[in-house]
Amino acid sequence: MTSQMEITLENMEDFARGAAFLGTGGGGDPYIGRLLAQNAIKEYGAPKVISADELDDDAAVFTSAMLGSPPILIEKGCCGDDIDITIHKLEKLLGRKAEAILPVEIGGMNSTIPVVAAARLGLPIIDADGMGRAFPEIQMCTFSVYGCPATPLVASDEHLNTVIIDADSPARAEGLIRSVAIEMGLSVMLSAYPMLGKQVKDFAVHGTLSMALGIGIAIREGRTNGNPAEALIEYLKTTPYYNHASILFDGKVTDLRRETTRGFAIGHCHLEALDGSGRKMEVMFQNEHLVARENGVIKAIVPDLICMVDRETAEPIPVEHLRYGQRLKIIGTSAAPIMRTPESLAVFGPRMFGLDEDFTPIENL
Amino acid sequence: MTSQMEITLENMEDFARGAAFLGTGGGGDPYIGRLLAQNAIKEYGAPKVISADELDDDAAVFTSAMLGSPPILIEKGCCGDDIDITIHKLEKLLGRKAEAILPVEIGGMNSTIPVVAAARLGLPIIDADGMGRAFPEIQMCTFSVYGCPATPLVASDEHLNTVIIDADSPARAEGLIRSVAIEMGLSVMLSAYPMLGKQVKDFAVHGTLSMALGIGIAIREGRTNGNPAEALIEYLKTTPYYNHASILFDGKVTDLRRETTRGFAIGHCHLEALDGSGRKMEVMFQNEHLVARENGVIKAIVPDLICMVDRETAEPIPVEHLRYGQRLKIIGTSAAPIMRTPESLAVFGPRMFGLDEDFTPIENL
Repeated sequence: MTSQMEITLENMEDFARGAAFLGTGGGGDPYIGRLLAQNAIKEYGAPKVISADELDDDAAVFTSAMLGSPPILIEKGCCGDDIDITIHKLEKLLGRKAEAILPVEIGGMNSTIPVVAAARLGLPIIDADGMGRAFPEIQMCTFSVYGCPATPLVASDEHLNTVIIDADSPARAEGLIRSVAIEMGLSVMLSAYPMLGKQVKDFAVHGTLSMALGIGIAIREGRTNGNPAEALIEYLKTTPYYNHASILFDGKVTDLRRETTRGFAIGHCHLEALDGSGRKMEVMFQNEHLVARENGVIKAIVPDLICMVDRETAEPIPVEHLRYGQRLKIIGTSAAPIMRTPESLAVFGPRMFGLDEDFTPIENL
Repeated sequence: MTSQMEITLENMEDFARGAAFLGTGGGGDPYIGRLLAQNAIKEYGAPKVISADELDDDAAVFTSAMLGSPPILIEKGCCGDDIDITIHKLEKLLGRKAEAILPVEIGGMNSTIPVVAAARLGLPIIDADGMGRAFPEIQMCTFSVYGCPATPLVASDEHLNTVIIDADSPARAEGLIRSVAIEMGLSVMLSAYPMLGKQVKDFAVHGTLSMALGIGIAIREGRTNGNPAEALIEYLKTTPYYNHASILFDGKVTDLRRETTRGFAIGHCHLEALDGSGRKMEVMFQNEHLVARENGVIKAIVPDLICMVDRETAEPIPVEHLRYGQRLKIIGTSAAPIMRTPESLAVFGPRMFGLDEDFTPIENL
């Protein structure tokens, strides 16, 4: 499978919007992410997109991501040198030059930061990631599930203060980098999970950059036809992962609780149906949406995707942009099959977020 | 000046006791520190003690220290491999083998940890440190005052999870390593301030290992003569740094407040005189004692040394061993001249601890 996708200055808006949808409320602001990617493309040229299958088994693949609290990412941004330094320090540590850049997650800014990294470093970007969505903690990805060490991990703040972590487990690496990120102002650039091409082929969630772009295009084209949410659902049904897709709820925000604590944006959002039926939905989130309950009954639960979009335009709404009175559609979709295996659920299933329920696929709810 | 000091299995008790005195309440438990050093000497042989003057100007000098909250150091100890790994990772990073080990501070465990490091690695230990006492934060040393970068800094926990920090200032390095130490369980082994022999000659506080041993011997010999506190004062008066020494107060603990917060043991201790005069003293501490006030009037203030010793035995009492009702003598001494320069006071003078007073030498109080 060769990736047909091209990254251009023009399609970054569609791409960032689609990635924000897959961010399921987290991953940061697509507007900021898109500007960062467009600036990098203008200055350095667009990176080539390759599929994982095009990699040599022995290729040195480096990831690039921002870690922190999405509302704070909006305020701080990044300077670019902070991205480069994480890759260059990791190259020095491993004694290998990076041959391709891989996103860890495909959601919000963490889909566009790797575009910035690839453009700045003149490297191809791989049409894949480690989640097929966004997640709040670095051990919550298929790389970790299938045994790739998260470390050595290099992180940098905007002053180019750097931290290199070597940890005996991805969860331990998460604990350490989270405390460092809090000290660094709650947003850092990092490169973790250095991998070989073979590992990417075996463990990544494939084709997710293309799908993010497809989602963005579907929303934009749907707007000209007057029903972008329906157009989006129709597109999702054609994808290999997100094909169990439906509008779970159509309502307005009546209650919103949000706090920035332990390095995360944590809270819940209550909605009431607009059809006068009195139906109510509650969505809980930790950076990303975790579970959607209608009158107490689960309608979708992590790792399946719960996404809030504007009722009229289908614009994905990150949790930091949720507001009282907003009119939203809540869309639920299935996650990639590799995200639903018992091994994966042991790392990022509902109980890993403190929820009392087991995972049930959205198509059975 | 060649160091006349020898480290032996037998003199570690005197040495650790003297270092605990110079720890001014901080730096951890001398009993644990002494056991660690004695075990290392038994297993690897005693390290040679050299004076800074014996170093080649170009010699690669590495420090070794424990960082965290002293009461927690008592519980956790260290495994030895966690000491080695910090040195070895720093050697790899700098491309140089360590040629000598230097204590960052001469107080409690951080005088004996470098003995452990030197013994394990077969390196000499330098009769000097960066404070001539103990201090709670890593930028609070003469190396930092006179422009030696604190980083690269390598830290390890007891599971050999490691963190390497590169920071644009020693204070920034302190912020980062403190947050990492909290996440690692509030006690880590580290190597920071890699230096050349010339820098050690120019900026270290010289001869402090010998003086710690001298203090320990004076206390022990004083016990056989019935007045160890007086014997200690007599010895201090013969030293080049601690010669303005006196017993500031003789009383019992009537009030004690202590908390482990922001990664430190912070609090204050109130004492009442035993002579029925009604005199009262308050001592504030942040790991180490910061200021001693008698009825509100300052009697000694940081960086001069404030040390609490048992009233009968002159055993130095670390803050974590302070207890209600304890009968103590409080001894004040001058700090080394290099610790009292305007440059030094800007880094670890009273105002750097949030105190409202300027430094006044103890001999003027």
